[in-house]
Amino acid sequence: MTINRQILLARRPSGAVSRDDFRLVETRIPDLSDGQVLVRHLYLSLDPYMRGRMNAGESYAEPQALGEVMIGGTVGEIVASRSDRYRVGEQVVGMGGWQEYQIVDGERAGALRRVDGTQIPLSAYLGAVGMPGVTAWYGLLQLIAPQSGETIVVSAASGAVGSVVGQLARLRGCRVVGIAGGAQKCRAVVEEFGFDACIDHRLHGDTRSLAAAIAEACPDGVDGHFENVGGRILDALMQRCNPFARIAICGLIAGYDGQPIPIGEAQLILVRRLKLQGFIVSEHLEFWPQALHELGGLVATGRLRYRESIALGIESAPAAFIGLLHGQNFGKQLVRLSVQPTT
Amino acid sequence: MTINRQILLARRPSGAVSRDDFRLVETRIPDLSDGQVLVRHLYLSLDPYMRGRMNAGESYAEPQALGEVMIGGTVGEIVASRSDRYRVGEQVVGMGGWQEYQIVDGERAGALRRVDGTQIPLSAYLGAVGMPGVTAWYGLLQLIAPQSGETIVVSAASGAVGSVVGQLARLRGCRVVGIAGGAQKCRAVVEEFGFDACIDHRLHGDTRSLAAAIAEACPDGVDGHFENVGGRILDALMQRCNPFARIAICGLIAGYDGQPIPIGEAQLILVRRLKLQGFIVSEHLEFWPQALHELGGLVATGRLRYRESIALGIESAPAAFIGLLHGQNFGKQLVRLSVQPTT
Repeated sequence: MTINRQILLARRPSGAVSRDDFRLVETRIPDLSDGQVLVRHLYLSLDPYMRGRMNAGESYAEPQALGEVMIGGTVGEIVASRSDRYRVGEQVVGMGGWQEYQIVDGERAGALRRVDGTQIPLSAYLGAVGMPGVTAWYGLLQLIAPQSGETIVVSAASGAVGSVVGQLARLRGCRVVGIAGGAQKCRAVVEEFGFDACIDHRLHGDTRSLAAAIAEACPDGVDGHFENVGGRILDALMQRCNPFARIAICGLIAGYDGQPIPIGEAQLILVRRLKLQGFIVSEHLEFWPQALHELGGLVATGRLRYRESIALGIESAPAAFIGLLHGQNFGKQLVRLSVQPTT
Repeated sequence: MTINRQILLARRPSGAVSRDDFRLVETRIPDLSDGQVLVRHLYLSLDPYMRGRMNAGESYAEPQALGEVMIGGTVGEIVASRSDRYRVGEQVVGMGGWQEYQIVDGERAGALRRVDGTQIPLSAYLGAVGMPGVTAWYGLLQLIAPQSGETIVVSAASGAVGSVVGQLARLRGCRVVGIAGGAQKCRAVVEEFGFDACIDHRLHGDTRSLAAAIAEACPDGVDGHFENVGGRILDALMQRCNPFARIAICGLIAGYDGQPIPIGEAQLILVRRLKLQGFIVSEHLEFWPQALHELGGLVATGRLRYRESIALGIESAPAAFIGLLHGQNFGKQLVRLSVQPTT
């Protein structure tokens, strides 16, 4: 008999997320029915979007249900199959949630996607060659649409999305400037990911100081911006935008705890003829094959680099997730699931 | 000898515009040189964009020079010509400024545009069949791109731009809701311009109340918004936007006196996947012929209606302009210039 350890949403956060908002439970895995497969998870992805789902209020998706397994992307392997479509040993990406195992209907289209761990490390399918990578690809190429020679700025630049945005923009001939928190992250953004410059927002406590730092790093102004944070970072950035700059709004981590995030000077949208556009990558599935093809090729050939922060064991997921919301991770935040072999 | 009465920018406003910011002067009109024409202005257009030009600070165009004639669109007739291209008696639209006469180089491309006052009243070339009309056409059709059955909201709905936006959207099968200031304007927006509803923002002193009124007038939510005002109108509107709503930002009259205009909840851009885009119609000249063709046809056949507020005499322009900035006009604000016949 196999035990599945799962993390449930125990209650909705009031303000900042706490570990008491989650509950670890152990459940017995039932026998498979015809057509089902059992996936053992190797990695769980932790992503900022999960914070929005924890609220009861409106977001772009249904709230995470109370008392149910937290949603999340996973990569794993088939350990039992009563489906003609999957064989034991195959590796798959899915939305398995914060748990060690998941039973999946093998017939359900899109539930699982086979991947190949020989060219690309399996964990990358949750990062640079997964949802975060496609998010970067779509926002940069479809919304910002950078031209060679333009200057592109990315906030949360050392993160799973931001690091890919910058590298893709560099490959297209742009000057790329990151914004990140802390000297260590900023150094890696330049040295590992090849950005032209990176601004440590912790050194700039107010909008004016941050705007001056952006001006220094972007002597020709800003033509495109990929926003993962919001708040004063977006305010400072808008002050440095060139006419016709495009701002893709991917995340507003500054407001995940429910407080309103203002934009200080909306008149800049008019004066600079800016375009601001919010997007959710899961609504643009038609671009995923093209994006994953490019991203996979770049990772396999070493031209797209990424970092991972890996927590160990499903029980570590809540603390790792809270750390992610506070910027304590570096690169893609994963949980490696170490479970007993199935019996 | 003909005297030209001109209004100059005497000083830059500090805060609200005052009549002392302008100065009326009388100058003698010099003799024409070869190639020049003398245009006698019949109407001067007063538009909100002029407020931005009066500031020294950055806008999308060069500031209005101190001590020079205020810029402005005009319609007039050729009263003397030393150009082969124009005959006395022809009617022309130009950027003649706040003055009774202007000498124009007849060879300069785009300086003057011949118009025909037999099908369309001459003043309409400064409104529904001029810059304001093209502004409405471009922002609505190129940026909002409404689909039949969608709900479109327009602020400053009784104005020269807003009234055209709403009528064009109605012609394309949309539900159209205006926002205007005062019962009289709101009544005209519905009864004269055919909007489905109009909200009097003066009855709603806070964002929440205004948002409730928008919800009532837009039972299916808001799919597109044409913003001429900013401030709490935009905040309330964003709360009622449907996913993928498009917001064209044409003017932010709420901030013309230099104060920052915040957007209260930027997270709505992400949560609703909104697109906000600022634009200046003079940067999209390629669309003008198509827009003017449609607008002219609609006015000539009575399917596009407009209102005008007409002040008399160049000396009335400063007070009329200040009234425009305070919403005291109704429809297109013009100055009718009554001058002595040329000698």
